Amino acid sequence: MAITNHLENFCPKTVEAFVQKAEALTPTLIQKTVFPVSLGTVFWLDDDWVYQKKEPIAALNGKSFGKGERICVDFGDHRVGYLSFTLSSIGSPPDAPAYLRLKFGEKPCEIGEESENYQGSISSSWIQEETLHVDVLPASVRLPRRYAFRYLEILIKDTSPKYRVTFSDIRCETVTSADIRNVSPLDLKDADLIDMDRISIKTMEDCMQSVFEDGPKRDRRLWIGDLRLQALANYRTFQNYDLVKRCLYLFAGLTQNRGRVGACLFLEPKPMVDDTALFDYSLFFVSCLFDYYKETGDRETLLELWDTAYRQIELSSERIGEHGVVLDSDDWWCFLDWNDELNKQAGAQAVFLYTLKQARYLAEEIGDADRLHRIDTSLLWLAKGAKEVLWDETEGFFVSGTKRQISWASQVWFVLAGVFEKSQNQALLRRLLEKRPKVGMVTPYMYHHFIEALFCCEMRKEAIDQMKRYWGGMVKEGADCFYEIYDPDRKDFSPYGSKIIHSYCHAWSGTPTYFIRKYVIP
Amino acid sequence: MAITNHLENFCPKTVEAFVQKAEALTPTLIQKTVFPVSLGTVFWLDDDWVYQKKEPIAALNGKSFGKGERICVDFGDHRVGYLSFTLSSIGSPPDAPAYLRLKFGEKPCEIGEESENYQGSISSSWIQEETLHVDVLPASVRLPRRYAFRYLEILIKDTSPKYRVTFSDIRCETVTSADIRNVSPLDLKDADLIDMDRISIKTMEDCMQSVFEDGPKRDRRLWIGDLRLQALANYRTFQNYDLVKRCLYLFAGLTQNRGRVGACLFLEPKPMVDDTALFDYSLFFVSCLFDYYKETGDRETLLELWDTAYRQIELSSERIGEHGVVLDSDDWWCFLDWNDELNKQAGAQAVFLYTLKQARYLAEEIGDADRLHRIDTSLLWLAKGAKEVLWDETEGFFVSGTKRQISWASQVWFVLAGVFEKSQNQALLRRLLEKRPKVGMVTPYMYHHFIEALFCCEMRKEAIDQMKRYWGGMVKEGADCFYEIYDPDRKDFSPYGSKIIHSYCHAWSGTPTYFIRKYVIP
Repeated sequence: MAITNHLENFCPKTVEAFVQKAEALTPTLIQKTVFPVSLGTVFWLDDDWVYQKKEPIAALNGKSFGKGERICVDFGDHRVGYLSFTLSSIGSPPDAPAYLRLKFGEKPCEIGEESENYQGSISSSWIQEETLHVDVLPASVRLPRRYAFRYLEILIKDTSPKYRVTFSDIRCETVTSADIRNVSPLDLKDADLIDMDRISIKTMEDCMQSVFEDGPKRDRRLWIGDLRLQALANYRTFQNYDLVKRCLYLFAGLTQNRGRVGACLFLEPKPMVDDTALFDYSLFFVSCLFDYYKETGDRETLLELWDTAYRQIELSSERIGEHGVVLDSDDWWCFLDWNDELNKQAGAQAVFLYTLKQARYLAEEIGDADRLHRIDTSLLWLAKGAKEVLWDETEGFFVSGTKRQISWASQVWFVLAGVFEKSQNQALLRRLLEKRPKVGMVTPYMYHHFIEALFCCEMRKEAIDQMKRYWGGMVKEGADCFYEIYDPDRKDFSPYGSKIIHSYCHAWSGTPTYFIRKYVIP
Repeated sequence: MAITNHLENFCPKTVEAFVQKAEALTPTLIQKTVFPVSLGTVFWLDDDWVYQKKEPIAALNGKSFGKGERICVDFGDHRVGYLSFTLSSIGSPPDAPAYLRLKFGEKPCEIGEESENYQGSISSSWIQEETLHVDVLPASVRLPRRYAFRYLEILIKDTSPKYRVTFSDIRCETVTSADIRNVSPLDLKDADLIDMDRISIKTMEDCMQSVFEDGPKRDRRLWIGDLRLQALANYRTFQNYDLVKRCLYLFAGLTQNRGRVGACLFLEPKPMVDDTALFDYSLFFVSCLFDYYKETGDRETLLELWDTAYRQIELSSERIGEHGVVLDSDDWWCFLDWNDELNKQAGAQAVFLYTLKQARYLAEEIGDADRLHRIDTSLLWLAKGAKEVLWDETEGFFVSGTKRQISWASQVWFVLAGVFEKSQNQALLRRLLEKRPKVGMVTPYMYHHFIEALFCCEMRKEAIDQMKRYWGGMVKEGADCFYEIYDPDRKDFSPYGSKIIHSYCHAWSGTPTYFIRKYVIP
């Protein structure tokens, strides 16, 4: 996610005990040393940049490079970590610094495109490119920043006429808090699903750092929308419960005005909540806690964080209008999907219903009769509002906003909210697949909810077909990890104005393993 | 200096004991914290880039900067050291790295010119420009490289729409091995000479690091040609005798094939001799030792290094042809000056005579009768060759090469060599000033020898006039230090194809203080 709204009169509230509890759960990162596997070149082919292997990496021995020359190496798979290499010289003693430019790419386009030409809406500071003067050779160069990449290009901007440089021991120290040994083997024959499972686990692994990051290239932050999906996949794979618990305590310990859970947290220089607030994202604190408790039965955490969760219900209730419908507005108040055309009212209403039901379960579990009662009242009121105001019987779809927009997102979320019976929901989804409203889904994040809705309605075949069409499209493209943004019908689509700024290993895209391991395997 | 020749079959020879002695003399650098004095802008005015102060540096408080904006600060004088600053943000928590470009300039042209357009002959890697991503704000940023500069420009390449950056505590930790407290006050009324003395001391101070560097911006190395002049100025000012001794032991401990003293040494990663060999530069080891001994009376060092010194005489003798004249050649065998048109034969002959006389003194001092005898033989033989082959009685000038070139450098060096009597030398210099041969002097290094020749011939007025015309020209230009390259008649002259690569604080230009304190003050 990359959002640019912010709260007025931002006044964050810290619960020190929660933050300390979270900090005590900071994981020790697992490090591994990996090496590039080949030397090659990146060039434009048909309609995209591609990497072509030229030689095995061993061919780097004995090669030397002068001004204007470059090397491009492939690390064989997506990597998140710290680059180092030895830079030496041949010829006369170096009489001028070596001047290098390094470009890191999750995809070849990041190497191929000239960064100077970037004009996208997201900060160019995310482009993984550095220039570097090395004054003394030979040198052990270790770049201090963490990169997410598979391809590395080093351009020799200059040496001097008296010497050339050589490279050796190019390596990456990868980092993750995900322990791959905890992932059980997959008992499945379907090759497409096996690929999807593997890539989605790799995506999750590379996003699991000191918190669940949304993407290790960009934004490297803890977004609650991503966290919710990461936690679900994590429960089926790495089972790092402490990392989820840490993130829950961070969100609860670092809230915005009036105890509102923020959309995301920064970890450095110290944990703090961003000033971005989103209706759905605040409510997802309830979901995250619900899922965590269902998975772990950790009652102590539930009891400690219940007030924070319930506070989101209270604050969200303030946005309910007189007919039991969430008030719409023109500002950036709710996320749902990266689609500028999407009206959020219906989706927000459904998310509220969805999380109210989870809150109800937790209230019952705790025995919080008073809040249980209030939740029940809200559930009735909101369900009534949904059916009477947002449901269009003639169209057979939920509508959203004053222009009564019919979108995929609204239908999917109302299925998940369970306003109707299963048979009605199935009919709604079939109608959706048949009529294909114009306002579609653009992110894997929204596709996740679509697949979840299909599985919930026992439309297993449709769910798997959709997964194969959507994530399978990325697999066919040769994805190492699943992308932040993917539209199978518009491969060059970018909401940011340039594909080089996309995150090609993005947590919210990594849930196929969750679906496969929860719904597909026997 | 920046030279691109190199020796075939390079096989350096190390005398470990000498190197260890040199290393034991490594100075502790004196550190000082300095701050910028103003905020301003660099722009093109008439025929050069200029810096204009806009506000005092205190005005930086309260200013913030976004994408594409820049600050330019003036540190008030030339600085050699390490830059640090605090980078903070205002607005929302930084949701993308801060991306900066830093340019350091000894002169405003280095800020004003676009480095990408540089096409000069010297490596662009010397251009003091960095790009930097700062992931976490606020940050204490300290750049690891040492810079030589007065002006610093920071361009904010990007932040994000959510935040702007602020700068505070911009500072430079300067380093030098020169202790200014050792420099005695100058008892002089002439304002021009006072300025020249001050600037030349500043030049020397900034070039004195772990060795006598030629220039702290470029090449940051120990060249023996520069060392010789630096030592002379040092004896009259900082009196850091150990630093000269250290450099002598380094040159003697790290020789080239057959014990030849190299033209320059590298200090990192460990001291080593470059593969550049120059006839005059090897012989200047004798001069450096001579000057050091005359200044300090350090007999132990003289005794230890005498063999190395005499070895340069022996090796240089191999280049003497049958008429007692140094053999000329088309390769880059002798330096003298940065003038491509200059034929080096006569100058080399004179340098050999000049250093033979110094070697004679040392041999006598030591009581090395055998070598003394051989030196005397050589002196006669070379003086005869000079007078019979290189002296043109009709022209009244020394000529050089098969084309019998008449240059300033040849006359100046023969005056210093003392082939003729003082009255003849005076006449030669007056003729030189009158006839003004076309092949002139282009570096302060060559001008140094011209001024020295004038003082030696008791042409005090002419010497001071020439100093005022030459170094005085730099003073009028507002020089903080004296430049590597300066031609008062061609201000835009560059032997490298671009003025931004010039070193504007260069040791070989810093000898006015030597002349003033040796010859001018009572």
